[in-house]
Amino acid sequence: MTDYLPAVLDAIDHNREAALARLFEVLRIPSVSTDPAYKESCRATAEWCVATLREIGFEADLRETSGNPIVVAHDGPADGAGKPHILFYGHYDVQPPDPLDLWTKPPFEPWLDLEPGNGDVIVARGAEDSKGQFSTILEALRAWKQVAGELPIRVTVLIEGEEESDSPSLPEFLARHGSEITCDLAFICDVVQWDKDTPAITVRLRGIVGLEVVLTGPSRDLHSGQYGGPALNPIRELVNVLADLHDADGRVAIPGFYDGIEPPPPDQKKQWQALDFDTDGFLGDVGLTVSAGEKGYSALEQLWERPTCEFNGITGGYQGVGSKTIIPSRASAKITCRLVAGQNPEKILDSLQSFIQSRVSHDCKVEFLDKGDAGLSSEDEVFSFETRVKVASRKAFSADPQSPYLKAAAAALEEEWGRPAVFMGSGGSIPIVSSLSRMLGMECLPIGFGLDDDRIHSPNEKYNLKSFQKGARSWARIIGRLARPA
Amino acid sequence: MTDYLPAVLDAIDHNREAALARLFEVLRIPSVSTDPAYKESCRATAEWCVATLREIGFEADLRETSGNPIVVAHDGPADGAGKPHILFYGHYDVQPPDPLDLWTKPPFEPWLDLEPGNGDVIVARGAEDSKGQFSTILEALRAWKQVAGELPIRVTVLIEGEEESDSPSLPEFLARHGSEITCDLAFICDVVQWDKDTPAITVRLRGIVGLEVVLTGPSRDLHSGQYGGPALNPIRELVNVLADLHDADGRVAIPGFYDGIEPPPPDQKKQWQALDFDTDGFLGDVGLTVSAGEKGYSALEQLWERPTCEFNGITGGYQGVGSKTIIPSRASAKITCRLVAGQNPEKILDSLQSFIQSRVSHDCKVEFLDKGDAGLSSEDEVFSFETRVKVASRKAFSADPQSPYLKAAAAALEEEWGRPAVFMGSGGSIPIVSSLSRMLGMECLPIGFGLDDDRIHSPNEKYNLKSFQKGARSWARIIGRLARPA
Repeated sequence: MTDYLPAVLDAIDHNREAALARLFEVLRIPSVSTDPAYKESCRATAEWCVATLREIGFEADLRETSGNPIVVAHDGPADGAGKPHILFYGHYDVQPPDPLDLWTKPPFEPWLDLEPGNGDVIVARGAEDSKGQFSTILEALRAWKQVAGELPIRVTVLIEGEEESDSPSLPEFLARHGSEITCDLAFICDVVQWDKDTPAITVRLRGIVGLEVVLTGPSRDLHSGQYGGPALNPIRELVNVLADLHDADGRVAIPGFYDGIEPPPPDQKKQWQALDFDTDGFLGDVGLTVSAGEKGYSALEQLWERPTCEFNGITGGYQGVGSKTIIPSRASAKITCRLVAGQNPEKILDSLQSFIQSRVSHDCKVEFLDKGDAGLSSEDEVFSFETRVKVASRKAFSADPQSPYLKAAAAALEEEWGRPAVFMGSGGSIPIVSSLSRMLGMECLPIGFGLDDDRIHSPNEKYNLKSFQKGARSWARIIGRLARPA
Repeated sequence: MTDYLPAVLDAIDHNREAALARLFEVLRIPSVSTDPAYKESCRATAEWCVATLREIGFEADLRETSGNPIVVAHDGPADGAGKPHILFYGHYDVQPPDPLDLWTKPPFEPWLDLEPGNGDVIVARGAEDSKGQFSTILEALRAWKQVAGELPIRVTVLIEGEEESDSPSLPEFLARHGSEITCDLAFICDVVQWDKDTPAITVRLRGIVGLEVVLTGPSRDLHSGQYGGPALNPIRELVNVLADLHDADGRVAIPGFYDGIEPPPPDQKKQWQALDFDTDGFLGDVGLTVSAGEKGYSALEQLWERPTCEFNGITGGYQGVGSKTIIPSRASAKITCRLVAGQNPEKILDSLQSFIQSRVSHDCKVEFLDKGDAGLSSEDEVFSFETRVKVASRKAFSADPQSPYLKAAAAALEEEWGRPAVFMGSGGSIPIVSSLSRMLGMECLPIGFGLDDDRIHSPNEKYNLKSFQKGARSWARIIGRLARPA
């Protein structure tokens, strides 16, 4: 079997200017999904994706949804002969460009700039998130097709247009087209690498469960003179129960909260320690000096390895200026727990509710709200699927450290970048990872070439030219590696 | 010395219809002080008071303020020969009548109604609060003048027109006219009696101190995935410190909080126990079943005798519908403490601030707001007086149980009602009591004939005809008692 990879990499290098011109072309279409005024631009961007994929040689088309259309494309040998069928996921929609006056030039007129420390950077809304990122994939696919005539493995491309709007059409789309989309492996390009010289694979993502607790004491707001003493104050009930949710060491006190947690493998932990994470800089950026998390863990471990219980909002009683001497009728708090691998979201939600219920006084009524669930109707034909997606999306993600695909991707990244890929964690969630892995049973590998300083969602969003070029080369190598016999 | 009292009481009884006609006359003037549309009606009411007092025989006039005018009147022997010079305080302004559609008839067209359990009742806005209440005083003074030709003691009457609007003009007025207003004893008529058959003197009023605490953690709201763990959450700091403010027995944990408390005399406590206060009914009215206050005290004792620390409002993070996964930058709470006799408001405020300050984490910034103080300017000529009033108004009020005036008033009430006056407490504050007692050094006796079911501030406000008639007789007896040699 011919080793096309060196020629593929050469093609990518020789096509740099044309690749950049193609990226600039799609960056000029203002595909803001959160603003209906850009609806036609979103469609035009989807059509650009279809045309580009067809030009590369894909069988591509545009699938209608109740929102923006989704682009689906296939190519490569139908019979993989033991080689994996892979999915690339990206999104063509972008964040709104506001505030416009903070941009150096108009956000949809991409330009190159020279930035100290970053070299040449591509600046535009979407330059990284994710038009730049998925263009690295398109360029790798184009080079493979151009050099080898065909892809060495079967590839499906899925590019949605509502990621910045919480992907409302995607669950129904996956429910209806799951069999077409299901592959052995999905690459999610919407992530960062460790730093500008070090590639990464995101191997851990935290899950999340949450609820709003509403406590009601007296049937109306009371005069604190006329009732103060005998009358139950629901704010006092609320602060008592919330204060009990953590112990003095910052551990979460919900019974069973830490049950089943799967710690990262020792070699991952060793790699993390060697990263020399800049805790002072991380905290100093947001005005803090001391890590406030669970005792016995570094800041990086707290983010990547440990679950949390956070209070996102609290409300009760008088909210205006000055004083109003009432004992309020109600008080409420919004609570979310970030979960890690091995934790059972449903059990934790149940245990949290029991914890609260058992601690409030007899006269205090407890209600739990979960607006996420409340939005689902059993009349809806996709109800059961959405519910399963929702439940699944609460779980944490953890890549299998023994996966041959993970090892192949890591080896390809190390070849391109000259240093091992960091097996990163991330404190947040990526809903598509949960949907694809838990619902469609696909192995997921979040790999991208973004950097923390790319200013995504902010003015002057950028993507390093180096990220764009080495990103495409990295994907070319990953495709090559996956095509090799194991 | 002639005993005019029997004839004075007879005169009150014979003048019932005329007295009621006079009350209806003043009830027809819509003196709502909170709404500028009624400004001229307020002035007309003040003028009605001046005219009425002159007709009785007082030297009366109307004093301009920056708000509604204040009525001041004097009569009686200038040289008291050992008899007290007394002040009667009332207010001629009323609450807005809204919601109008819940009134049986128009609120400023007074009428008589027959109510089961209450007999004939006078219904109108202000029927009790306080046009009805101060009219009992005017009728007693009128009868004394009519029968005896002159009052047996010197009397000053002060009727303000902004009590329902927090008396903004009163502090400056008292600062400028303090020597004219200062008497040996002030009667505050703006209170209730124990029940419709039992008179009362309010001998204890709680004081109040308060502040708003604002905690700031991160310099901006953070993503709870990207920062959750290491980042300090100010809501968690706030609930921890607020939860520490009470112990498991409902006692306030602020150091020194209970220092110096002067418990009520044993005979007062004995009287309270005999009252058989309906705790179940009191709590049941507002949807509660169990007294939530300090262990070891009855609900009535908690209200009348014990201080509190209440959370009037709490705010932090996301306040909208559903979920937003942030760690907020700020969280705040409004706290007020109701104080009892002997507690030092300034020390408690200092101790509360130290308590909070000492408990928050290093990275958590603490600010204390007191909008009440912030509204005072040192450029203001009445600054020092207002500050003193403010500080004074924070202290609790407690009548001297050995006062000969208290004993005389109690004896007079018992003569009229045929049963001893209850020496009541009240959980709230009456700012004028603090101003007169602490600032002008006057002894204060809050005595009134209102009832808890008078619907003050609500539609169909009423005053029992019996309250109106026996109220006037009670004042006539009190004046007679105070005129007797001790």
